[in-house]
Amino acid sequence: MTDSSTNMRLKLPIICFILEIILIILFGVLVVYDHDTDAKVFNKNMKMNSSTAGGHSGHDSGTSDDTDYRNDFYYRYPSFQDVHVMIFIGFGFLMTFLQRYGFSSVGFNFLIAALSLQWATLMQGFFHGLHEDGKIHIGVESMINADFCTGSVLISFGAVLGKTSPLQLLIMAVFEVTLFAINEFILLSILGTRDAGGSMTIHTFGAYFGLMVTRILYRPKLEQSKHKNSSVYHSDLFAMIGTIYLWMFWPSFNSAVTAHGDPQHRTAMNTYYSLAACTLSTYAMSALTAHDGKLDMVHIQNAALAGGVAAGTAGEMMLTPFGSMIVGFLAGIISVLGFKYLSPILEAKLKIQDTCGVHNLHGMPGILGAIVGAVTAAVVPKEVYGNGLKKIFPNVASGERETSYQAGMQAISLVITLAIAIFGGLIVGFILKLPVLGAPRDNACYEDSVYWE
Amino acid sequence: MTDSSTNMRLKLPIICFILEIILIILFGVLVVYDHDTDAKVFNKNMKMNSSTAGGHSGHDSGTSDDTDYRNDFYYRYPSFQDVHVMIFIGFGFLMTFLQRYGFSSVGFNFLIAALSLQWATLMQGFFHGLHEDGKIHIGVESMINADFCTGSVLISFGAVLGKTSPLQLLIMAVFEVTLFAINEFILLSILGTRDAGGSMTIHTFGAYFGLMVTRILYRPKLEQSKHKNSSVYHSDLFAMIGTIYLWMFWPSFNSAVTAHGDPQHRTAMNTYYSLAACTLSTYAMSALTAHDGKLDMVHIQNAALAGGVAAGTAGEMMLTPFGSMIVGFLAGIISVLGFKYLSPILEAKLKIQDTCGVHNLHGMPGILGAIVGAVTAAVVPKEVYGNGLKKIFPNVASGERETSYQAGMQAISLVITLAIAIFGGLIVGFILKLPVLGAPRDNACYEDSVYWE
Amino acid sequence: MTDSSTNMRLKLPIICFILEIILIILFGVLVVYDHDTDAKVFNKNMKMNSSTAGGHSGHDSGTSDDTDYRNDFYYRYPSFQDVHVMIFIGFGFLMTFLQRYGFSSVGFNFLIAALSLQWATLMQGFFHGLHEDGKIHIGVESMINADFCTGSVLISFGAVLGKTSPLQLLIMAVFEVTLFAINEFILLSILGTRDAGGSMTIHTFGAYFGLMVTRILYRPKLEQSKHKNSSVYHSDLFAMIGTIYLWMFWPSFNSAVTAHGDPQHRTAMNTYYSLAACTLSTYAMSALTAHDGKLDMVHIQNAALAGGVAAGTAGEMMLTPFGSMIVGFLAGIISVLGFKYLSPILEAKLKIQDTCGVHNLHGMPGILGAIVGAVTAAVVPKEVYGNGLKKIFPNVASGERETSYQAGMQAISLVITLAIAIFGGLIVGFILKLPVLGAPRDNACYEDSVYWE
Repeated sequence: MTDSSTNMRLKLPIICFILEIILIILFGVLVVYDHDTDAKVFNKNMKMNSSTAGGHSGHDSGTSDDTDYRNDFYYRYPSFQDVHVMIFIGFGFLMTFLQRYGFSSVGFNFLIAALSLQWATLMQGFFHGLHEDGKIHIGVESMINADFCTGSVLISFGAVLGKTSPLQLLIMAVFEVTLFAINEFILLSILGTRDAGGSMTIHTFGAYFGLMVTRILYRPKLEQSKHKNSSVYHSDLFAMIGTIYLWMFWPSFNSAVTAHGDPQHRTAMNTYYSLAACTLSTYAMSALTAHDGKLDMVHIQNAALAGGVAAGTAGEMMLTPFGSMIVGFLAGIISVLGFKYLSPILEAKLKIQDTCGVHNLHGMPGILGAIVGAVTAAVVPKEVYGNGLKKIFPNVASGERETSYQAGMQAISLVITLAIAIFGGLIVGFILKLPVLGAPRDNACYEDSVYWE
Repeated sequence: MTDSSTNMRLKLPIICFILEIILIILFGVLVVYDHDTDAKVFNKNMKMNSSTAGGHSGHDSGTSDDTDYRNDFYYRYPSFQDVHVMIFIGFGFLMTFLQRYGFSSVGFNFLIAALSLQWATLMQGFFHGLHEDGKIHIGVESMINADFCTGSVLISFGAVLGKTSPLQLLIMAVFEVTLFAINEFILLSILGTRDAGGSMTIHTFGAYFGLMVTRILYRPKLEQSKHKNSSVYHSDLFAMIGTIYLWMFWPSFNSAVTAHGDPQHRTAMNTYYSLAACTLSTYAMSALTAHDGKLDMVHIQNAALAGGVAAGTAGEMMLTPFGSMIVGFLAGIISVLGFKYLSPILEAKLKIQDTCGVHNLHGMPGILGAIVGAVTAAVVPKEVYGNGLKKIFPNVASGERETSYQAGMQAISLVITLAIAIFGGLIVGFILKLPVLGAPRDNACYEDSVYWE
Repeated sequence: MTDSSTNMRLKLPIICFILEIILIILFGVLVVYDHDTDAKVFNKNMKMNSSTAGGHSGHDSGTSDDTDYRNDFYYRYPSFQDVHVMIFIGFGFLMTFLQRYGFSSVGFNFLIAALSLQWATLMQGFFHGLHEDGKIHIGVESMINADFCTGSVLISFGAVLGKTSPLQLLIMAVFEVTLFAINEFILLSILGTRDAGGSMTIHTFGAYFGLMVTRILYRPKLEQSKHKNSSVYHSDLFAMIGTIYLWMFWPSFNSAVTAHGDPQHRTAMNTYYSLAACTLSTYAMSALTAHDGKLDMVHIQNAALAGGVAAGTAGEMMLTPFGSMIVGFLAGIISVLGFKYLSPILEAKLKIQDTCGVHNLHGMPGILGAIVGAVTAAVVPKEVYGNGLKKIFPNVASGERETSYQAGMQAISLVITLAIAIFGGLIVGFILKLPVLGAPRDNACYEDSVYWE
């Protein structure tokens, strides 16, 4: 399996070192602690005589004053850690289903996520977070957003899984993070769109970007590696670790950056019921579409998660558990049907070789989520929100726009997201074709031994 | 292994669709957001000019007012997520110890849990949560309770593991959730019993219900599948993932729905020490009961958790770490002895084929926990609680009853739980014998390929 | 593989029972609930008419008063659980990389951790936590500290992995916990050193203690077991579960016992960026040091974590994300170089058989972290902290010492830690040579079947 073109001995270190040194320099120039992480700023009104010692010894620390307890750390960090688990364990292990690609699934996931979260901090900070001092102020909320952006890159990774070198993935990550931040800026800051759980910004964007990249990287002779593009018994169990973590923590994902109070609480609960309903429809459809009624691990591992994707936009709204369950129920059905009938067509007719079926888990359910968001914004009367309206639709609460206008913006945002994702994926796909990037040969895809000892 | 009677092509989709559609309709009719998840109700006293925008962009969000920080989400949701991990990863992977039943262990666990948590929301809401408006009001606390009820079903699943179809399991879940809610209502609402971590309501109930079901489903020719009723090297490691997660998060489980403040804190700590002591006695007994002194993975995977079960009732009381350690120490001893000596007798004499040994992990330690709870209620003077008494024994604090009366109610509750569990399991066991439900043949038990591709 | 000297049938139960009974007695005599876990003390100012019932039923619990929400449980417990996962899943699974030692890795990790956390509660309580009443008062912060001390023992376990009996490990744990508590007391209480994430107290101490133990237990004929001292495909994937959990939760580890408010928030963020930078330099160095440019799982599993170790002392200081990234970047480089070039030398020349390479993950990065801490204390002007100075350097804030003096104490602490660790490891190593402790023979190392059925 060794081959000089895939030898990473110099290429990978050079690109890693260059990227990391650029990141470190830019962080040194541009990034500072935000209000809640800076010692001086956060404590500027602290009474000098209050005592708040710490240190890892066994004393009682009941002396913090109220300001300390209102640090955003306590209201976002548990959600952050759940999202973090989804990014590194969830996505990483979900992709270990391939029999000989477990090291690369977890290991490349780890590498490109570690790069993406740093680059995302800068790009998202540049677009939304520049303060009057010209600096990017960071804290737990920017950490969550960086992880979200990383999630989008990992979705695209799922589409090209097994067919790319780590070098190609790093290059893809740099471009995709940048485009993600631009799209996010247009949607959230310019259009005032709501998308707390990222049905559009994360899932639709990541899926269609990745699908376009894999289209451009089309390999007509990929059947030479076909025997490795499947699972074995224990690889499917490793993948279930990823699935279950994604499923359990999706309520935290969708609620991680909503406004505090009822929106965070409601979003988590809506997502919980959407996922539960989705699981039942996934099992039903998996048995129904098999000639012998046997369940297919691919469906369970993926389609059962579609309810989380589809609740990503409307989750924070007054969707009700009832509405959430309908959304999840439909998402599971669509997703299994996609795996069973649409993916083979995409591969045969459109030459889209989508290794993980991200179109079925993130693409179509992401679009469904965007539509549900627009519809929910349109049909739920603003009176239902009472004073809470400003937490969900600040532009409507301020009288600046009507709910129908908000709904229109939501719908337009889906179109913009698709356009940027597809066009961006097209360009980046061509960049990744550079032979110097060390892609594996057609008969060495889905194979760890190309890049791992 | 294929067999028309186990073909799920129509049966499973039909039952899943019917159940999910019924659930969606009932949620539409009966379920509404509670105080902390409803936008209008939660914000009704919010000053109109306070600004609390959110959205996944990088701004600082230090502007929430105090009301937002008091949303119950922040005081229950981290515990909820720990419980959620126990239900889906903990129970799911604990049962992957069988060499050829990993897909079913994780996969059926996933399916019946997703159903149970929805049905439990309705049943528990119906019995304890109906408000004056005739609706069930839900939020994070009801989510935890739904997961708790689900845990009980999964315990019963452990008793019948490998011998039932997914259809049988779904039917069992519907009945068991209903009976669980009735028993819980009698104990907590009518008798004023305390059982925060569910030694009785969850563990004793789930274990004896499941044992009765597996008794009714007794298979005299099960030895035809005996060679598959054992572990292989890596299946035992997957099971240890389940064990360790259950062990780590049991403090969160027992404290998830206790009153806020000291009770939640104390319960978590008591459980932590109970489990640590239990682990030492488990290892000791495992070596002691083996003729060559070698440790048995079955004991480590299961008995080391008995300390969590046994601290489920008294954990919130002033049990002290000292008392907790004694309880855990005893629980580990009882549990290993049960696996070693009692389980073979139950199978040979009482015809109870208890695949996971739930009698040893949940049954006997649950009864121990109930007794410890009654004794602790009786012997700790109410002065020890000071003003905190009303958080633990509100009926004693109000002067309505004496501690001895409370202790009597605790003891009676154990008897009622056993009665409902055993009688309920008897009835449900007979229902599950319907041939149409597609149970595997005697020579196809403990085998994924019956229901999985 | 059976051998009367390794038979644990009586030895292990006897030592477990004796230790646990001693622990229970000492807990009974010495340990009481602290302010936030005691019902009477915590609620002493509670108004008698406030109603705060709980119990696992579906009611809304919006009635807790402010005091309840300020219980330290809510501000430490999520961090505690993340640390707990690192100790039991992180360390446990990281060591499963050996092909035939997975049961022992997870299982002995579990056993000695369960012992250590109990013994650490007493030792740390004795040295730092004795109150005027002569009792040890415990709550969530002491639970975190007990887990921290346990982490140190598990690091030493990594050095001797595969070559010791469970009995030897229990004896080692008892002595190591004691010496850990003494060293921690000297550093934190006497010298006023800052080491929130334990670069010195946990990592440097645990590593050099373990290295000295393994030096004393040197086995010249260990090559008889050499074929088992390596990984297989799936054992490396299990190990990645450990790696990823350690990596994700290290921000929680370093921030778990810092002062509330900005320090906790800042420490988590600094660690996050340190780890991200470390991951890129690890991948770069792994490819660069392989003749064929292939990545080595050993490096990814271990060196990528060095950024967390190296941010353990300075993480709470105003290190900035920029500084954190430089530290992590260097830590990854040092760690890979250590695995590649230094470990073989240590084994060949110094007779140190370091199974997991703890010198590369905890030893050198720990020293780096201590130095970074001293330098950061010296060079960041105290004005940068404003009123927040007292949370990080209380002795400087009170005017008792200058920053340069603090930096000197930090440096001296490293020397003291090394001295106690090396001298302690020497003594304990000789104790562990007692033949009665049942170490495996040279040709039966790295082999589960010696101690497991």
